[in-house]
Amino acid sequence: MNQFFTDASNIRDGRITVTGADVNHISNVLRLKRGETVSIVCNDNGLTYTCAIDEITPVEVVCLIRDVQSESRELPVSITLFQGLPKSDKLEFVIRKAVEMGAVRIVPVAMKRSIVRPDPAKAAKKLPRWNAIAESAASQSKRGMVPEVLAVHTFAEAVTEARKCDKILMPYELAEGMDETRRIMTDIRSSEPGSIAVFIGPEGGFDETEVNSLKEAGAHIITLGNRILRTETAPIAILAWLTYIFER
Amino acid sequence: MNQFFTDASNIRDGRITVTGADVNHISNVLRLKRGETVSIVCNDNGLTYTCAIDEITPVEVVCLIRDVQSESRELPVSITLFQGLPKSDKLEFVIRKAVEMGAVRIVPVAMKRSIVRPDPAKAAKKLPRWNAIAESAASQSKRGMVPEVLAVHTFAEAVTEARKCDKILMPYELAEGMDETRRIMTDIRSSEPGSIAVFIGPEGGFDETEVNSLKEAGAHIITLGNRILRTETAPIAILAWLTYIFER
Repeated sequence: MNQFFTDASNIRDGRITVTGADVNHISNVLRLKRGETVSIVCNDNGLTYTCAIDEITPVEVVCLIRDVQSESRELPVSITLFQGLPKSDKLEFVIRKAVEMGAVRIVPVAMKRSIVRPDPAKAAKKLPRWNAIAESAASQSKRGMVPEVLAVHTFAEAVTEARKCDKILMPYELAEGMDETRRIMTDIRSSEPGSIAVFIGPEGGFDETEVNSLKEAGAHIITLGNRILRTETAPIAILAWLTYIFER
Repeated sequence: MNQFFTDASNIRDGRITVTGADVNHISNVLRLKRGETVSIVCNDNGLTYTCAIDEITPVEVVCLIRDVQSESRELPVSITLFQGLPKSDKLEFVIRKAVEMGAVRIVPVAMKRSIVRPDPAKAAKKLPRWNAIAESAASQSKRGMVPEVLAVHTFAEAVTEARKCDKILMPYELAEGMDETRRIMTDIRSSEPGSIAVFIGPEGGFDETEVNSLKEAGAHIITLGNRILRTETAPIAILAWLTYIFER
């Protein structure tokens, strides 16, 4: 079943009114017709509504609510990915996969060894596109919310933001071995954190000053195993680990 | 440092002779010169040789062995990925990522719901390309061996092959919850298997007859969490889990 997202304000009297880009998607791309069933998740209350399409006009699709489910597909811990800005279109790949794997926020970070130096005006222009990618990935993986992609942060801004999380994780090639990493992960699990920040270095890895600044912020340094992972694979691996450890 | 692979037969008298496609890669792509250092892994003994380039000709590169390391970057369990044939070029993505994440063999499997029906002659032609991708990914992730990509198997052939492994894992959307999955994974870890077969369904998922046939072969059915993963993301997630559980 196709899934869409909506705000609580569009839900009234047993009906949900879909507007915006989803209207074209429903009528012209998916070619859904009156009577067909769609799944609509409310961004505000996290509920999933099973609906029948009642009316399709060029500007809106009115759906009748048939059933409501409160079952959550969200991880019991809120994960923010701080991704060192990678080359070319890899960030879009990372957004897609991080959403699929359960992250709730993605923060691109201009790190010292990032090869791309984003022009702030250009990066700001990309933000709507990045968030559209997140929404589409959220629909496909049946997420219970649409993860947000923030504007490109400086490293200092990212650390300030990460300090608001209960725990900070930093996979780093100079970490101690796997036994120590498993010990750290088990301890973190036991502490029942509400939120975790994960920092992933860009292609060139973290600069030493960045490592020190994260250590100072209380980050736990871990390894992701004995093979070298690409900057765009590492977030998938750590999100898989966090799923294994935390998923209900 | 750039890494290449060689067979034991190319190592003699403190020298390694590199031939084949690596020669062009070293001299014309990487533009390495005499005296520069490369890392060469022996496919037969798994040792890593640190070498200085001694001579570059159009047909071979002769390297002087400076140091030998026996430290293994390989997982302590040998994982074969049986991947339901996905659409378009996704199999190449899966090969690249599975190699990066530590699989030792990749077996594309024509499953009932695979959208692509490969013409055997065409698929056979792609085999060298698939293995070249595996070799390149193995170099980049500093693997201690080059994983092999086998020809497209039928489901029956794949099950016969998988029965040779100590354990079979099948992520399936109708699996019990995460607690049961963690229990299965912990049991498997305790049994210290030498080899594990992992089956991943194609875009449309497994057919019921396939599920039954794998159950009969003793497969453990697990979930990968509460979100829907794409067929090309699932192998990364399960390989990440196996790394977390088994890595030394």
